[in-house]
Amino acid sequence: VKLLLCDIGNTSYHILDYCVAYKREVGIFNPASITEKIYYISVNGAVSERVATLENWVDVAQYVDMSKYYETMGIDRICAVEAVRSAVIVDAGSAITVDVVRDEKFEGGFIFPGVEAMEQTYKNISPALDYSFNFDLDLDIMPKNSQDAISYGFLKTLYSEVMSHNLPVILTGGNAVELQKVFKNATVDEKLIFDGMKQIIKKAQLC
Amino acid sequence: VKLLLCDIGNTSYHILDYCVAYKREVGIFNPASITEKIYYISVNGAVSERVATLENWVDVAQYVDMSKYYETMGIDRICAVEAVRSAVIVDAGSAITVDVVRDEKFEGGFIFPGVEAMEQTYKNISPALDYSFNFDLDLDIMPKNSQDAISYGFLKTLYSEVMSHNLPVILTGGNAVELQKVFKNATVDEKLIFDGMKQIIKKAQLC
Repeated sequence: VKLLLCDIGNTSYHILDYCVAYKREVGIFNPASITEKIYYISVNGAVSERVATLENWVDVAQYVDMSKYYETMGIDRICAVEAVRSAVIVDAGSAITVDVVRDEKFEGGFIFPGVEAMEQTYKNISPALDYSFNFDLDLDIMPKNSQDAISYGFLKTLYSEVMSHNLPVILTGGNAVELQKVFKNATVDEKLIFDGMKQIIKKAQLC
Repeated sequence: VKLLLCDIGNTSYHILDYCVAYKREVGIFNPASITEKIYYISVNGAVSERVATLENWVDVAQYVDMSKYYETMGIDRICAVEAVRSAVIVDAGSAITVDVVRDEKFEGGFIFPGVEAMEQTYKNISPALDYSFNFDLDLDIMPKNSQDAISYGFLKTLYSEVMSHNLPVILTGGNAVELQKVFKNATVDEKLIFDGMKQIIKKAQLC
């Protein structure tokens, strides 16, 4: 089945046009420029209001069985969870959401700051901590310089928690490829959220 | 030996007047108001310049064997390390520094954002993440609400890394007592940095 899908985040529209994925900036892109039927999810309040007025934009959220999740959980996280059987899903965007699914049961999840947010945090604490993260860091060695000390603080703490669940790790989101340098055995799946949207659409027999 | 000690941070002078510890705000407190000999350390560039002009203020940093450490490592962290034999030291202030000492050897350390900085980070990512952390969270259960999801993201990631070293944990700094709710077997030692300063002063035979 051919589907036009859109995952609307805080900064961009992520569109899957049958098999081609592309991004358009929130604030520049006009959703009314799409006239075909398009299934979407949105965590962006302003854009949600706008596309709700367009008849061809169908909100996938209304077809989710919410009893498995919690009320304020982002619909993007829910879609990712719907796409997997057993995994820790690490979705690295402006925030890094980590969700644990075991035997198709959602166990819960947590939120960690994204790469950019965390670099900004260190910089705000002290100009002496104004570095980009070193993703090539060896996490088995305790750091002995400032750049590695903040890189390790960001990456090893996240890594230690994620690996403690003893499940395969799936990386998605804008910083997935960078994080794979640390999560060496993880799979990168840029279309995980779209896969979950398709599952939900299929279950709801919308196509 | 009776000593007057001062640990100067980004926001306050932390003074140990023989056995009474107290804090004075940077920007309000006048260091020239102390006329006795006082041994200090400082991570605050502006205050460092000011006290350097005062003859009775003695910088402890000059007596440290720096070969064990790295150049940009904060003198407060070095003093804490000098105070212990084998431990993970978690100093929770505007940043949380974590340093690993095994058999009096400094193995290295990392830097994590402090409580306030991290709450601000989540808030900046999204107004939906504007919560205070829940320190009473059960870290054995994956969160299913937003406040717990960010609290777990901050606390469990730090906890997992710190505990992986299999060493006693010592908490110090302004948020030590809050963190003890999570690090249940940890010792809180508010005077750890002063203990390290005393060790350095003793080794240097200054008194």
